[in-house]
Amino acid sequence: MRQFIVVGQDAPTTAEFNLDALPGAGRMDLLARCVTASLLLSHGIRENVRTHLVLDDKFTVRFDGSELRRLNPDERSTAALVRTALEEREEAVGHMAVETSPGVSLSRLGFEATLEQVAEDSTVVQLHEHGVPAAEAETPAEPAFVLSNHVDLGADYQEVLEATSDEQLSLGPNPIHADHAITVAHNWLDTGGFAP
Amino acid sequence: MRQFIVVGQDAPTTAEFNLDALPGAGRMDLLARCVTASLLLSHGIRENVRTHLVLDDKFTVRFDGSELRRLNPDERSTAALVRTALEEREEAVGHMAVETSPGVSLSRLGFEATLEQVAEDSTVVQLHEHGVPAAEAETPAEPAFVLSNHVDLGADYQEVLEATSDEQLSLGPNPIHADHAITVAHNWLDTGGFAP
Repeated sequence: MRQFIVVGQDAPTTAEFNLDALPGAGRMDLLARCVTASLLLSHGIRENVRTHLVLDDKFTVRFDGSELRRLNPDERSTAALVRTALEEREEAVGHMAVETSPGVSLSRLGFEATLEQVAEDSTVVQLHEHGVPAAEAETPAEPAFVLSNHVDLGADYQEVLEATSDEQLSLGPNPIHADHAITVAHNWLDTGGFAP
Repeated sequence: MRQFIVVGQDAPTTAEFNLDALPGAGRMDLLARCVTASLLLSHGIRENVRTHLVLDDKFTVRFDGSELRRLNPDERSTAALVRTALEEREEAVGHMAVETSPGVSLSRLGFEATLEQVAEDSTVVQLHEHGVPAAEAETPAEPAFVLSNHVDLGADYQEVLEATSDEQLSLGPNPIHADHAITVAHNWLDTGGFAP
């Protein structure tokens, strides 16, 4: 399985955000694109993918490719799935997840708890400008990539990540958006590490 | 320079489309993501890029990275730039382009005319599942990639493209969305052809 943890440091944690103004809603536009970049092929879903959106270190919305229905490629409808999930926030008690639409669930987990769960059976890959260039690195069998939305991870997040990550990987010389990084990571894995 | 020609086979050619329903507007959501995938870095613009959206074989909206202002990463505001361009459609006479916002211009050019202009000083690359795998191919100095939106290119387009394209390239084993293909193509070029 391939997993992606996307950290939305100032993402909304209630359903009170406007689908017509996603950039102003904690960059929900970018979070939505991370979901679609991780889970969609041209005419299908990547069933071997699980994507976790960590919202303001308080809630995590999980998308399971193997069970997902109704994921469209556009930002607005994807953000609507997140909003639907947040409408159930009072149902997410303790660390129990509540399924809010097919293949989408919400839990009251922050970054550390989500990362710990994922790390149990994954190789945690930190994307880093000084990491090993992807073309020189081995592709892990069960990778989990950690990405931040539009700002660098804060110190608290960084500390947790440094303690847990297994590898640092560089995808290229230019700083790119998180959703684009996900697309490149998939291509790296799809091609067996850019193998000729 | 890197160029991208994105063919919107049933894209709108008037400004009468709804920014709240982009998928229903000839997949304007996808066209918008192609623009941002081609032109944006994490905190900047790729100045060496020119992207051409061909709308229903009738109009072309061109985005010039070297002159572009006010391009945000979200679909809605990018689609609004296209809509603003189409509001000036009566000003686009013959093959003369009209600048509709900084770095964005509209011209009355279909696919063949746009492709011919671009091909004059570019290597035209057709993305194709049976093309040369990217990891084995040389990166052209002045590449121009041709992509279709969500459906395969129709026969008329295909004929024009076959006659003009210099290379066929495969980006990987899975069929991916056009915007994701643009991101992978950039990464291929950024890394000198995935060179270790």
